[in-house]
Amino acid sequence: MTTEHLPEAGPASTRGRPRDTTRDRALMEATLAVLQSHGYSGLTTAAVAKEAGVSTATLYRRWRSKEHLVVGAARTWAEELGPDHDTGSLRGDLAALLHDKAHALEGPSGRLLRAVLGEAAHNRALAEVLFTDFVVPLQGRVSALLERAARRGEIDPVEEPEVVGELVIGPMVSHTYLIPHTPGPGPGPGPQMADKLLPYLLRALGART
Amino acid sequence: MTTEHLPEAGPASTRGRPRDTTRDRALMEATLAVLQSHGYSGLTTAAVAKEAGVSTATLYRRWRSKEHLVVGAARTWAEELGPDHDTGSLRGDLAALLHDKAHALEGPSGRLLRAVLGEAAHNRALAEVLFTDFVVPLQGRVSALLERAARRGEIDPVEEPEVVGELVIGPMVSHTYLIPHTPGPGPGPGPQMADKLLPYLLRALGART
Repeated sequence: MTTEHLPEAGPASTRGRPRDTTRDRALMEATLAVLQSHGYSGLTTAAVAKEAGVSTATLYRRWRSKEHLVVGAARTWAEELGPDHDTGSLRGDLAALLHDKAHALEGPSGRLLRAVLGEAAHNRALAEVLFTDFVVPLQGRVSALLERAARRGEIDPVEEPEVVGELVIGPMVSHTYLIPHTPGPGPGPGPQMADKLLPYLLRALGART
Repeated sequence: MTTEHLPEAGPASTRGRPRDTTRDRALMEATLAVLQSHGYSGLTTAAVAKEAGVSTATLYRRWRSKEHLVVGAARTWAEELGPDHDTGSLRGDLAALLHDKAHALEGPSGRLLRAVLGEAAHNRALAEVLFTDFVVPLQGRVSALLERAARRGEIDPVEEPEVVGELVIGPMVSHTYLIPHTPGPGPGPGPQMADKLLPYLLRALGART
């Protein structure tokens, strides 16, 4: 995979007076808000500038096109999975990852992902940033926890950790995006599905109990 | 789940002279094409009418709003999973379902689903038709194949077949929508992932070999 067509993630210029990070943050929050309500096609830089309370000139000094702005937002709201950590068991590691994923999908990164998934079908720069910033970190945590489990003797070494990655990311995504949920008390649909998936995943991996 | 807010799927009127089904088909194909290139927010009935080669008056006689048009398209392009069929084994039934799903995701239904997934986050009618026409048929096939496998003694009865459904639908969706694929010879990414998932799913179900 190349990144040659990828716009820079950063602002158009870093020279001159110090960056106003409050404005950058406001612009990224505004981009997410406009994406959620209008989608990629319906997003205009004017609408984002208005939502953020800045002039379009200010926006263009930081992001030189609509595409740069949205790719920048995708990076800003990249999957907030949190760091990999060793809980001491495959069950604990997998449960932590599933719950981190559920949390991420219900937060800004999940809302951003959902809002731009359609556009990424024919927007290579966006598809690449989704892969790099959303899929790769999850696949990295999956590989790390599988290696630890194999070292502990809980499972045999896994030859294709990316298939296990799909088994973790996929059901959480489809459950969050495809099943209509009625808000209510108690844990949301993501954490509930995380708990239900866990025993299936442990058996799929041939975990020795 | 209620359907009280769901627009009718059919045309605005079925009275008068016989329907021109060629035009209906052209309008549904045009809706999918415009959705793919412009997303829900960027779709206008004028653009769909132009793409289909009909007047906007003709379009409005059949679909009385943009929302009706898109919900109608979602139903027209509902998951083409094909019928459930008994291959004689859990392995065969699951493989057939995974490959049918891979095929559907790469066809019009998969492209439609991807194009409207973002909009469905805040459009209840669309979310409901996606659930009814995309999720429910797959869950039905999963339940049927699990029951047959339990009757054959291949697995214990499954208490929550919808969790298994997520394990089938989810990785296929995430793999198709989130991993950038370079077109090439041989089977596409969906069928390849279907084959890789199969042994994990059989183990997850505790299939007796």
